[in-house]
Amino acid sequence: MPVKLVAPQAASLLPVSGVKLGYAEAHMRKAQRKDVLVMTLAEGSAVSGVFTQNQFCAAPVLLCKSHLAQSAQAKQGIRALLVNTGCANAGTGEQGMQAAQQTCVALADLLGLDAQQVLPFSTGVILEPLPVDKVLQGLPTAIANLSEDNWLNAAEAIMTTDIVAKASSRRLLLDGKPITITGMSKGSGMIHPNMATMLGYIATDAVVSQAALDAIIHYAVNKSFNCITVDGDTSTNDSLILMASQQAGNVEITENSPHFSVLRDALTEVAVELAQAIVRDGEGATKFMTVQVEGGQDAVECRKVAYAIAHSPLIKTAFFASDPNLGRILAAIGYAGVDQLDVSKLKLYLGDVLVAENGGRASAYREEQGAAVMQEAEILVRVDLARGAASCTVWTCDFSYDYVRINADYRS
Amino acid sequence: MPVKLVAPQAASLLPVSGVKLGYAEAHMRKAQRKDVLVMTLAEGSAVSGVFTQNQFCAAPVLLCKSHLAQSAQAKQGIRALLVNTGCANAGTGEQGMQAAQQTCVALADLLGLDAQQVLPFSTGVILEPLPVDKVLQGLPTAIANLSEDNWLNAAEAIMTTDIVAKASSRRLLLDGKPITITGMSKGSGMIHPNMATMLGYIATDAVVSQAALDAIIHYAVNKSFNCITVDGDTSTNDSLILMASQQAGNVEITENSPHFSVLRDALTEVAVELAQAIVRDGEGATKFMTVQVEGGQDAVECRKVAYAIAHSPLIKTAFFASDPNLGRILAAIGYAGVDQLDVSKLKLYLGDVLVAENGGRASAYREEQGAAVMQEAEILVRVDLARGAASCTVWTCDFSYDYVRINADYRS
Repeated sequence: MPVKLVAPQAASLLPVSGVKLGYAEAHMRKAQRKDVLVMTLAEGSAVSGVFTQNQFCAAPVLLCKSHLAQSAQAKQGIRALLVNTGCANAGTGEQGMQAAQQTCVALADLLGLDAQQVLPFSTGVILEPLPVDKVLQGLPTAIANLSEDNWLNAAEAIMTTDIVAKASSRRLLLDGKPITITGMSKGSGMIHPNMATMLGYIATDAVVSQAALDAIIHYAVNKSFNCITVDGDTSTNDSLILMASQQAGNVEITENSPHFSVLRDALTEVAVELAQAIVRDGEGATKFMTVQVEGGQDAVECRKVAYAIAHSPLIKTAFFASDPNLGRILAAIGYAGVDQLDVSKLKLYLGDVLVAENGGRASAYREEQGAAVMQEAEILVRVDLARGAASCTVWTCDFSYDYVRINADYRS
Repeated sequence: MPVKLVAPQAASLLPVSGVKLGYAEAHMRKAQRKDVLVMTLAEGSAVSGVFTQNQFCAAPVLLCKSHLAQSAQAKQGIRALLVNTGCANAGTGEQGMQAAQQTCVALADLLGLDAQQVLPFSTGVILEPLPVDKVLQGLPTAIANLSEDNWLNAAEAIMTTDIVAKASSRRLLLDGKPITITGMSKGSGMIHPNMATMLGYIATDAVVSQAALDAIIHYAVNKSFNCITVDGDTSTNDSLILMASQQAGNVEITENSPHFSVLRDALTEVAVELAQAIVRDGEGATKFMTVQVEGGQDAVECRKVAYAIAHSPLIKTAFFASDPNLGRILAAIGYAGVDQLDVSKLKLYLGDVLVAENGGRASAYREEQGAAVMQEAEILVRVDLARGAASCTVWTCDFSYDYVRINADYRS
């Protein structure tokens, strides 16, 4: 069961002016589920994206990058997004590229756009051909129900092994103008930074320059989706898209605007919530763990330690068992690959409890204290490397029987 | 259940002249199990060791290194080894060092040796103090039953979560003289190269120089224990010890001897068998997987790809389910971090079946073929990167419900 995560109320998801969403049940893999999503953007919208670094990246990812580059050059903006679940269209070679292109052409024709104004996204099983016909059959229905009010339906339409739909809204004032931000994400397994197996879409009606939007997406992804891991597997299809429909009537936000950081931080807050939601809904998750590493010489070594802890199946199964078998955390710190680490200096905390110092168990530590923290559904693991001022935070979940069940059964 | 691995017959384990083994039930953690082992070596024996690279390495590992260095300098050879299970004496700080030292002093006193002639080893739970009294109480019994015929009992005495005792013998001729090699290992979880959570002891009666023995251990470990992974966790206590009792009457083997490679290869063969046995008995293992990567530019990139595959929980759970969900393997190759990998050139084979080429599924591939291979207990995954002549092989096992059960319950 997801850890402290419930599906949002439809009414809590605020429409973003200029951004419409429509869905269909196209029987991509299973009957009676929304599995095709169309989003349309008002003319003049700015769109920015970051994508998986997996070299076996999927055909739609390659096409997204190409369409974003083409539309920037042709000054002919992105106007629609097309998402399907059930098939990742990854590991599909040249045929997969043609399939993704076909779906863009079809949607563009129906909407009166050029194909390069459409961004395609797929998520699901790898190494199987995209059933193009099913996607195309779903398009008329999806277009027919396009609406600014469809965020919850849209969040449901992009789910795969997710148990709970993930979406969130914020409202803020810029220059006295109300600005809306609404985003959604999906992802549950094959979750790792750079990035998770995830799709994320965040829209705002703010007036914001392309350069500022590009800066914001990189800032936000590094604080959010690049800080989560479920199983250490970086997927072929990860994509995060930030859209600004330019409808809110505020003075344009550029990178030098006094309000730049306000918008950036609000968008980042939504990104963090959506990223954490993926971990809370991690396959089989029963615990949500925040791994905070501080006192490092640089961020790189902090991340090495944080991910050594967050990836260790031994640690993740101990958390599942609520067993404060904390020596496993010391072992992970020890093999994280930090040069010349002085293990006698570092400190390990579980929640507020000092567990280890001077190279061993803290003298005041009692196992009951660790056991009490382990009972919680949200647990903080804090490591002070005591050799510098850098820090980082990573979110992950535990490793349960259900992780194995879900992944052993996923295709059946 | 271990994959194609049964406990050796006592009679199949050949005594090594000059090497005696004795055990005791010292109630280290559980009643009625052998948990303390003493080995003694004839005067003049050569001993070589390689140890974990974990920076949080255990007190006995630090002491082993120190004693090996001291005994080399004092030309006063290692004459005894002391192993306990139940407690790793790791993450125990200065107190842990004193505890390990105490056990060496006690055994040395009983055997009429100096403490630095004893190598200590511990395996078990991390972050708990070593119950020194229990170890000491076990020593007289262990010494009383010292015998060259005790290899199976010894292999049982070093087991922790192992289901099956791991030991093997070889006999060969050098200069017409019969040479015996017998070794044993333990390890089941927290298994990763550099090295596995493992203890390994291999003894031979061959006459061999210290330098040659040192060369052989590094060669052997790189072909064996450094090629296995169960869960990617490098332990605090890993140790492999190679001992040569110099009793066989052959002409001394040096690095330049014509027979050097014969002895090296025979010892390596035993090391490979013992290393593979650890994977076959991997916690919860139901499948034994050989991951072979070839056509790489260098060994480093081959290992990156092999370990990306061997560590992926998604791949390991798919193998557990006998589900040829092979896109997950392509995804792992894609995120392994190989620079400028051309995914359209590489080939992926499952057993003898070509699964992927040209960036996608091989046209002749049928899922039934993959499903048939997946039914086997031993499975070969072969990747041809098609960009060079380097290769590597890694052994691992699948990821089952039982892995979670064992590690969620280990301390209880």
